[in-house]
Amino acid sequence: MTVRIGVIGTGAIGREHMNRVKNRLSGAEITAVTDIDPKAAQRALDDLGIQANFYPDDQALINAEEVDAIFVTSVGPAHEETVRKAIKAGKYIFCEKPLSVTAKGCKTIMQDEMEYGKRIVQVGFMRQFDTGYEQLKQAIDSKLIGEPLMIKCAHRAPEVDAAYTTDMAITDTLIHEINILHWLLADNYVSVQVLYPRKNKHALPHLRDPQVIMLETESGVLIQAEVSVNVKYGYDIQCEVVGEEGIVSLPETESVKLRHKGKQSTDILQDWKVRFQDAYDKEIQVFINQVAKQEDLHGPSAWEGYVAAVTSDACVKAQESGQREPIELESVPAFYTTEKTEAQLS
Amino acid sequence: MTVRIGVIGTGAIGREHMNRVKNRLSGAEITAVTDIDPKAAQRALDDLGIQANFYPDDQALINAEEVDAIFVTSVGPAHEETVRKAIKAGKYIFCEKPLSVTAKGCKTIMQDEMEYGKRIVQVGFMRQFDTGYEQLKQAIDSKLIGEPLMIKCAHRAPEVDAAYTTDMAITDTLIHEINILHWLLADNYVSVQVLYPRKNKHALPHLRDPQVIMLETESGVLIQAEVSVNVKYGYDIQCEVVGEEGIVSLPETESVKLRHKGKQSTDILQDWKVRFQDAYDKEIQVFINQVAKQEDLHGPSAWEGYVAAVTSDACVKAQESGQREPIELESVPAFYTTEKTEAQLS
Amino acid sequence: MTVRIGVIGTGAIGREHMNRVKNRLSGAEITAVTDIDPKAAQRALDDLGIQANFYPDDQALINAEEVDAIFVTSVGPAHEETVRKAIKAGKYIFCEKPLSVTAKGCKTIMQDEMEYGKRIVQVGFMRQFDTGYEQLKQAIDSKLIGEPLMIKCAHRAPEVDAAYTTDMAITDTLIHEINILHWLLADNYVSVQVLYPRKNKHALPHLRDPQVIMLETESGVLIQAEVSVNVKYGYDIQCEVVGEEGIVSLPETESVKLRHKGKQSTDILQDWKVRFQDAYDKEIQVFINQVAKQEDLHGPSAWEGYVAAVTSDACVKAQESGQREPIELESVPAFYTTEKTEAQLS
Amino acid sequence: MTVRIGVIGTGAIGREHMNRVKNRLSGAEITAVTDIDPKAAQRALDDLGIQANFYPDDQALINAEEVDAIFVTSVGPAHEETVRKAIKAGKYIFCEKPLSVTAKGCKTIMQDEMEYGKRIVQVGFMRQFDTGYEQLKQAIDSKLIGEPLMIKCAHRAPEVDAAYTTDMAITDTLIHEINILHWLLADNYVSVQVLYPRKNKHALPHLRDPQVIMLETESGVLIQAEVSVNVKYGYDIQCEVVGEEGIVSLPETESVKLRHKGKQSTDILQDWKVRFQDAYDKEIQVFINQVAKQEDLHGPSAWEGYVAAVTSDACVKAQESGQREPIELESVPAFYTTEKTEAQLS
Repeated sequence: MTVRIGVIGTGAIGREHMNRVKNRLSGAEITAVTDIDPKAAQRALDDLGIQANFYPDDQALINAEEVDAIFVTSVGPAHEETVRKAIKAGKYIFCEKPLSVTAKGCKTIMQDEMEYGKRIVQVGFMRQFDTGYEQLKQAIDSKLIGEPLMIKCAHRAPEVDAAYTTDMAITDTLIHEINILHWLLADNYVSVQVLYPRKNKHALPHLRDPQVIMLETESGVLIQAEVSVNVKYGYDIQCEVVGEEGIVSLPETESVKLRHKGKQSTDILQDWKVRFQDAYDKEIQVFINQVAKQEDLHGPSAWEGYVAAVTSDACVKAQESGQREPIELESVPAFYTTEKTEAQLS
Repeated sequence: MTVRIGVIGTGAIGREHMNRVKNRLSGAEITAVTDIDPKAAQRALDDLGIQANFYPDDQALINAEEVDAIFVTSVGPAHEETVRKAIKAGKYIFCEKPLSVTAKGCKTIMQDEMEYGKRIVQVGFMRQFDTGYEQLKQAIDSKLIGEPLMIKCAHRAPEVDAAYTTDMAITDTLIHEINILHWLLADNYVSVQVLYPRKNKHALPHLRDPQVIMLETESGVLIQAEVSVNVKYGYDIQCEVVGEEGIVSLPETESVKLRHKGKQSTDILQDWKVRFQDAYDKEIQVFINQVAKQEDLHGPSAWEGYVAAVTSDACVKAQESGQREPIELESVPAFYTTEKTEAQLS
Repeated sequence: MTVRIGVIGTGAIGREHMNRVKNRLSGAEITAVTDIDPKAAQRALDDLGIQANFYPDDQALINAEEVDAIFVTSVGPAHEETVRKAIKAGKYIFCEKPLSVTAKGCKTIMQDEMEYGKRIVQVGFMRQFDTGYEQLKQAIDSKLIGEPLMIKCAHRAPEVDAAYTTDMAITDTLIHEINILHWLLADNYVSVQVLYPRKNKHALPHLRDPQVIMLETESGVLIQAEVSVNVKYGYDIQCEVVGEEGIVSLPETESVKLRHKGKQSTDILQDWKVRFQDAYDKEIQVFINQVAKQEDLHGPSAWEGYVAAVTSDACVKAQESGQREPIELESVPAFYTTEKTEAQLS
Repeated sequence: MTVRIGVIGTGAIGREHMNRVKNRLSGAEITAVTDIDPKAAQRALDDLGIQANFYPDDQALINAEEVDAIFVTSVGPAHEETVRKAIKAGKYIFCEKPLSVTAKGCKTIMQDEMEYGKRIVQVGFMRQFDTGYEQLKQAIDSKLIGEPLMIKCAHRAPEVDAAYTTDMAITDTLIHEINILHWLLADNYVSVQVLYPRKNKHALPHLRDPQVIMLETESGVLIQAEVSVNVKYGYDIQCEVVGEEGIVSLPETESVKLRHKGKQSTDILQDWKVRFQDAYDKEIQVFINQVAKQEDLHGPSAWEGYVAAVTSDACVKAQESGQREPIELESVPAFYTTEKTEAQLS
């Protein structure tokens, strides 16, 4: 079966996903779109050469006959309601982060999904599909380096615009590390502390930059996460797992090697979209393939959306308090662990 | 339009391409197959879950209504005839190397294609679609390192089976370097010399291994190409371009970095299919996209198939003579250069 | 002039320095030794083929006519008294760390040296003579990466014996980072916090290992220092300086590159003595050269010994309290800053 | 004993060695000098703060009471005669390359040394004392990579002056590879062929640059040596040994790692003196130590000087003929092999 996808929100990320479905991925087509700005939606379709029906709102699109699955790529605060409507309608959902802007909203979604009885929600944590992180996970799970004791990571961007605020270092940036490290370690967070090093002169007055976020997990792993969004030199994602007998770290991104003018060098990426392009492709292709088989989804779950929301809230609190803040998660429902195990086996 | 593809030859490489069309690429479907072994063809379809018509021979498949383009993935000696039939029928052709087992055959194909008046043949030189080689070409074309003076490359495999003979170091292995270096330099070969270093003890008695092939181009670039097919340690493709003011070389393949037991290490690939998987995907996706637009193909052309055939013949002669052998190419027809320029602009 | 050196303490490190004076360095000779175990001292002389006078105690050796300078390589608690005697006698002193086991002792020594009126004490912080750290300092001072914002460093050893206790992670191990980072940044510490990640299973029950020490400086630089002394894989010193526009980090130690059995690898050192051998040679050669010219010493000063002592005390307090502890230094006397500036110019 | 050294030739390299004896090495002093320009010799002594006797010629210096060993650092054509005089006088000799400008001269020196009955000549092939090459030798000798099959090396310099001629690519530049590869492989050369790639535009009209020298050894190892002396980007020595089961190559030179302006980079050296400074120090320190013990020298021998001379002659012939030229060595006298074995054990 060709999976027929309806897109809710045709902004930047929405168009990216429409483009990859049309031009790079297999087994799906865009059949419906909606956007608060109908003209923008039409422009997106025209630009990409896609023929699809336009619907006035998310409910109408969800109800449409020619829609098997939806992409939720609207603004963050709108996600929760749309996802709930789609679950009710039994349509598969790929939802960009955040699943909901509140932990409570994520719990409601989980409740709905459990009542529906099948995992049909995938959250857009694409790093789980990145080859480098997959290799890290394999190294950790194989116990090659013993148990992990520390993770040192960095999320660096060359610059941000004036709209980027201090809390967005958590909710927009660190959110990816929150998800991927939880997945890598299969271990819950218990506390967080935020430290502010000397401020980068390139950061605007209202922004604390860089930031160091220290997360601790149940088993005692200490995560030292740097967020720096004015480093100028490039877009740079680092992750080093220190284990009992060795250390494993992310690959550098692929680049030719140059010897020139007294330097041996490789290129550092400038654009975050390039860094994770393969991972974005893969997360959507996996979604399409699983929808085609009408099976439970194995990708990042609503539970992972909830963990990210709770952890993110605690990090923002720690930003403000300057204190170590607890991170308190509910127990993971069997509905999600079971599926996770299957996913890991698949 | 969805491009409808007929596959001629459902062996290993044929199945690979069928699989990528079905599961990883966009815009095409497999609608017809043929193979000298009909049962094998049916098994391929069943294994991949593809529904397609079976035809008794290449001509019948080429003539089929539901076939816009063909994959020629039969045994090498059969390629020439099939390609000629398809040109006559005006069907687009993706032909695995070799285009023909003789230079004369390649010339005949070029003649047919020129008479047809449109470039509809793409030869399976996938390295032109590899990110690393693309970056090398960009570095060379930008003159960052000045004019290229030398290329040092190596094509190493962990082992080969008993069927692998000394001349296959050229016709099966070096053939890829012959194509890609010609493309990188945009410069024709003029001579070749083959040297045999001390023999690897892991090589079977009938095989000369390793071999060093020294190719010279019109502008004087000296290529030092190593072929080693019993290196045990992995599958390893190296390419270093020495220019007047700097050196640029292929990236190492992506791998996590490990610190363990006194070693800092990264992994070397073992499997050639993994090394160029993205390039294979891309060469077929580009083919599909250009067929969909019914335009002239811009990928590796019949002319490049001819250059590879002539060069390969000279290399085999040099293997046997121990002398420097000339490589004499006809002038490239405008039909091929023009298209090439467009391709470079696209 | 040939510098005549008296060695006080002929244990392991004492012999190391005697050996390098005799066999690798220029311009000095060992003319006198003392040790609480006269037989051990004689064995050291015999083993190294050195002819030197034996003295019953430090005062006698210091007074000896044939002694221009002394090496204080006795046990730590004995250093302070010996150094004070030598200052009184006007003999040049190379003193292994710690200068004194208390901050108060360091202050007394500074007082004595200032009264004497000439800088004649050098403390054994050899990393300032390591090529890698010198290159780091040059990069920082040149402002190539903007102002430093963070330092991430690690001091890892394969294993320790049972005598190694939790506080020694500071006093024996981190002490080197305390000195070198202070020198790199030319910035005083203001606070410290110690965190304990999950314990390494290879650490003995009485030992907390690994440890993460977070130091903050006056200008706000945040240092994240890992001490791990059971990593098994090797002796590994890492240091990464994150600046406003770039990052500079220590070189990996020199090693041939190997491609073998599916891995590309380089060697990691196992032995700390090898890691800093050139730096040890250089610190002593610089000491000898400056003594030969009878000039003020420019190497690590008594002030730096004092800074290390105060910082080390605060770190141990933070280990125990689990809190952020202040680090309060007296103002640096002009006597030490002036000389430092000259040293930097020389 | 302090080794007393007389220096014959106080030009650039002579002063370098005088400086290292005085300021960096142990166990020797410069007691005598001679030079065709007495004023230059005096300036050298003054600049370095050395007090030594001046002699009118090499014979007078060799005869001097206060001379235990000599440094032959005069111009190349003068070496042979001076070395022979010193052997006759029984003085130890450290002779810069070439030992003699002719193979015949080298043989005469060997004859003299064998008659004298003790190995007292060391030739200035310093690379044998370079840590990287030592590690390569260890890897080869341990059979870690199986038997060596090929060596790929490069000797690159940023630029040369107008006095540098095509044959100097052999006699001044490749000469170091000729020696070190012979030592690494412990295998004699049997033939050589020289190829000229496209000329570098930075090379002066009279100079062929780059050059590729293909040497073959008795056991069949094929050496592909590049000499490029106008590469602009730096001074760069590469050496890769391809064995039956793996590859080992020289370390890159130590440099801090920088992430800056879109590049991850390390520095490439510009100055050849820096590249081998430690090796120069070590070759002279080893010489001093062995002279002090009055034992047979174990460093690069007159035999190695002879091998270099014969090979160099054949390479120059191959430069001119464009043909493969044979390299015909006499059998190595037991006098040299025996000593060599001892050296390897020491």
